[in-house]
Amino acid sequence: MAERNKKPMSKVEVGKLPAVSRKTSKFTRELKSRRNAYTPPEQETGKVKIIPLGGLGLIGMNITVIEYADSIVVVDCGMAFPEDDMPGIDCVVPDVTYLIENKEKVKGFVITHGHEDHIGALPYILKEVNVPVYATRLTIAIIESKLAEHEMLKTTRRRVVRYGQTVTLGDIKVEFIRTNHSIVDAAALAIHTPAGTIVHTGDFKVDYTPVFGDPIDLQRFGEIGRKGVLALLCDSTNILRPGFTSSERTVGRTFDQIFQENIHHRIIVATFASNVDRVQQIITCAEKYHRKVIIEGRSMVNIITIAKELGYLTIQDGTLIGIEDMNKYTDEQLVLITTGSQGEEMAALSRIAAAVHRKVSIHPGDAIVFSSSPIPGNEKSITKVINELYELGANVVLQDTHVSGHACQEEVKLIYALTKPRYAVPVHGEYRHLLRHKQLAEEMGIPKDRAFLLSSGDVVELSFAEGKVAGHVPAFGRMVDGLGVGDIGNAVLHDRQKLSENGLVTVVLAMYTGTNEVVSGPEMISRGFVYVKESEELLGEAVHVVETTLARIKSRGTIDRGKIRGEIRDDLADYIWKQTHRTPMILPVIMDVD
Amino acid sequence: MAERNKKPMSKVEVGKLPAVSRKTSKFTRELKSRRNAYTPPEQETGKVKIIPLGGLGLIGMNITVIEYADSIVVVDCGMAFPEDDMPGIDCVVPDVTYLIENKEKVKGFVITHGHEDHIGALPYILKEVNVPVYATRLTIAIIESKLAEHEMLKTTRRRVVRYGQTVTLGDIKVEFIRTNHSIVDAAALAIHTPAGTIVHTGDFKVDYTPVFGDPIDLQRFGEIGRKGVLALLCDSTNILRPGFTSSERTVGRTFDQIFQENIHHRIIVATFASNVDRVQQIITCAEKYHRKVIIEGRSMVNIITIAKELGYLTIQDGTLIGIEDMNKYTDEQLVLITTGSQGEEMAALSRIAAAVHRKVSIHPGDAIVFSSSPIPGNEKSITKVINELYELGANVVLQDTHVSGHACQEEVKLIYALTKPRYAVPVHGEYRHLLRHKQLAEEMGIPKDRAFLLSSGDVVELSFAEGKVAGHVPAFGRMVDGLGVGDIGNAVLHDRQKLSENGLVTVVLAMYTGTNEVVSGPEMISRGFVYVKESEELLGEAVHVVETTLARIKSRGTIDRGKIRGEIRDDLADYIWKQTHRTPMILPVIMDVD
Repeated sequence: MAERNKKPMSKVEVGKLPAVSRKTSKFTRELKSRRNAYTPPEQETGKVKIIPLGGLGLIGMNITVIEYADSIVVVDCGMAFPEDDMPGIDCVVPDVTYLIENKEKVKGFVITHGHEDHIGALPYILKEVNVPVYATRLTIAIIESKLAEHEMLKTTRRRVVRYGQTVTLGDIKVEFIRTNHSIVDAAALAIHTPAGTIVHTGDFKVDYTPVFGDPIDLQRFGEIGRKGVLALLCDSTNILRPGFTSSERTVGRTFDQIFQENIHHRIIVATFASNVDRVQQIITCAEKYHRKVIIEGRSMVNIITIAKELGYLTIQDGTLIGIEDMNKYTDEQLVLITTGSQGEEMAALSRIAAAVHRKVSIHPGDAIVFSSSPIPGNEKSITKVINELYELGANVVLQDTHVSGHACQEEVKLIYALTKPRYAVPVHGEYRHLLRHKQLAEEMGIPKDRAFLLSSGDVVELSFAEGKVAGHVPAFGRMVDGLGVGDIGNAVLHDRQKLSENGLVTVVLAMYTGTNEVVSGPEMISRGFVYVKESEELLGEAVHVVETTLARIKSRGTIDRGKIRGEIRDDLADYIWKQTHRTPMILPVIMDVD
Repeated sequence: MAERNKKPMSKVEVGKLPAVSRKTSKFTRELKSRRNAYTPPEQETGKVKIIPLGGLGLIGMNITVIEYADSIVVVDCGMAFPEDDMPGIDCVVPDVTYLIENKEKVKGFVITHGHEDHIGALPYILKEVNVPVYATRLTIAIIESKLAEHEMLKTTRRRVVRYGQTVTLGDIKVEFIRTNHSIVDAAALAIHTPAGTIVHTGDFKVDYTPVFGDPIDLQRFGEIGRKGVLALLCDSTNILRPGFTSSERTVGRTFDQIFQENIHHRIIVATFASNVDRVQQIITCAEKYHRKVIIEGRSMVNIITIAKELGYLTIQDGTLIGIEDMNKYTDEQLVLITTGSQGEEMAALSRIAAAVHRKVSIHPGDAIVFSSSPIPGNEKSITKVINELYELGANVVLQDTHVSGHACQEEVKLIYALTKPRYAVPVHGEYRHLLRHKQLAEEMGIPKDRAFLLSSGDVVELSFAEGKVAGHVPAFGRMVDGLGVGDIGNAVLHDRQKLSENGLVTVVLAMYTGTNEVVSGPEMISRGFVYVKESEELLGEAVHVVETTLARIKSRGTIDRGKIRGEIRDDLADYIWKQTHRTPMILPVIMDVD
């Protein structure tokens, strides 16, 4: 904080080049006051646009457009998990109308790391904007396994980038910088444009003692900062937490303790499929205590296989065994590493806990370790699994075996201190995170009006002299349901919600065309409303209600089908409400018979 | 722990009266070893049954049957909130088949305190077993307001009981003992039966400096313990937390700080409607800082009105104002106390945050205090409200302004040390809580086989000499949906779930009776499946698929309606899956026309 800038002069109208000398002098004074801020090099020209198409105001679906003149690069292409009010939806992917409309400008996707919220939408979006994808080695390998599932390997282009390497994409050069995160091979990006350099941290933490590879390349952050950073787009996920995130390595020590304490029992660890370093530490511990390791759960087998092939895991020959060989070993010779740490219904651990896993059943005394923290919304599913495990006689270990992969406040400050950006554009977070991050940027000396608090879709236009929100593009997520992307709207979701809460009653009848004479029916079919066998009386009486309505309609001479359906619906809804205080969806159908 | 019993001799077959002298001697030795345990008085005879009909293995729906010979008293009668997989369900109430079958024995309900999970099922259950309800003053008042809503005041009997008072219910005498909890007037019960005394703590904590009234009557617990307690039924809610729960009074000091720091802003506090002591502390703080107080939210107005009338709140004249007078005061003169601390969609704070509250809108700088902790499952709703409040410019206060109302481990141990029960029957908790509580009871000197780990419905039979699970009665909760209690079963829920995830397609056609000749249709109606306007092609093609099926059926000569419906369903499901990878419920209806 020694180099923290002086308080900005609040009256300087930042963002507009001063036209008169009085203002010029203020502008100059301000520049001088930022002792370590860079002077815009002569060659910096034009404006760069930053457009987050997702990831702001929500968790997930990270995707950010960087545009300079005729060049666009897109940072990440993630999906979001559906909210509670999106029944039946598989995932949410970004609306890339802006990219489609500017297709000829788009030079490529640059991906920071291989988590779903940064790569998950690629199979959908590459179908709409088919440009090359650039990322580090493990990230590309994970993307390729995903594209293979969608049979898109042949129709898409990928390129592996090493840390320190720079790729040229039209007028824009993107440099990959080593960071630390809960998946290996994570990168920050220095995006060099003629208007200035933008640093995007991706998801990151500062781990001075990482399990695999080197610590985050802080020197390079400093070097780039010294040359001048126009804007810093920095991870906000943990911005509400003070202090510094612990090193992944601390988890290893806790595992060692747990292995010592459970020397006579099988150990089952559930963790995130993609946390290769976590898996490495469990395997290292297993080898120390002469245990064999079984990896269980499709997504984990997939990622661990990839990571092992690429050399991101150090495993002695013979340590890993297949689940079919489990019975050759005693409990105290075994460790299982599984998916399901979030209580996901179909994941391995949940099936083990529900005693429906085909190959693993709990033995009394099994030590179960949740090496994870609950993602908000999953708390109840997780405790359900914990209760089930206890009921089967397992010992659910309560020690904390998780550290976050995201930077806390002090780490974020460190990145500000190294890069000293002219503009701060907090990314990855709900409103409360972005707001707190903006405040922190101001504490780090960024003037209030150069610290942006954006929504997804905002178009920010930046040059050294001026920074402003210059417009807005569509950025609502699109819901994916089966093969459909974006075809489910609020009306369909509203119907699903209503159907789920009250069920449905269909009333069918046939009338002679052009008359109101009933040929057949009314018949009544219900689903999700009442248990039919115990509600015969209610449903029988409901048929009478419809018959009374039909008699009234007939005596009145109405033949309009819409009106008839409306009256049936109203009368039936009234009757059902009075009898049950429920409001099922009522669907009257009239068949015309000649 | 000085008086902790020696380790029980593991081989003593507890629960069976020894028949031979060798065993007798062990039995005697064991008795002697329990230095402070009571010798069964001569007059203790017979067996008492304890039957939890709910509250074990789940959170909520607390209800426990105590039965001696021809007398039954029921402790509490609570409801549970529906689980995530119970769409449309209002609440869950206990199955009281056992009470109905033993109606003539049931002498009354004795209620420990006025929370929904202890009183919420009374309006439903009193209709089935109409016996008097006994409780302390505030508890009865809250029950009466609930019964009034159900128009049951005239048809039910209530009696107010004071702390220290004993009510005689057949062969059973129930004494009400003062405790502390997050609602005032909470009581533990000493249930004196000819077979021995059972202590039920209700929900409790040990608060040496409560806001209203006196600390928990520890002396009486000790006195009863000295005379001999057969069984202790003790709250398990916080059993996983070490240490001691803080006094409610500590929250007052934090409020004082918040009032000082927000001297120029309006303060809005969301808390639980029934936490009268919390409301008292906010009001006391408001008076100190010369602010007016508005209570907002139906349930809170209701309980605070009752508490005020009964003298549980000390409020200066003029402090409380109506919401309609809000505009007569400046922001810095106002405090609002509201419901909605759990992000409940219809509660006052959620409506304020969504800018749809009719009378309150957020002013920039408003200090919003969540005086609560998230109930598991509500985390996402709460952060949604927090984000909305920030977006409106409010300042969501991050200081912790909540303490639990439940005993942590050290408090539970204290109750064991005072009562020294012969049997431990942990209540109120999921399996993991009950399991940990059983372990804690064992740490407190209760032999393993006298510490029970029960499920709802287990029948425990106890005498000094013998304690065992002697059977099981029905104890599944019954789902309430509108006016229906227990008529919604798994089939209906399963349909609701399926409808919510995939929607529905109804196919209607008319055929001449006894033939397979189509008179009209097929017509297709869908809800919650696809957006019809954008899916005309799909739905049109689906009609063709059904027509093809019908042609095949016709050529084959099938006239069985069930078979025809089945074939339509299968063909249509196939087609829809291939086109969309979705699985809507398909409902074929065939009308017969003569």
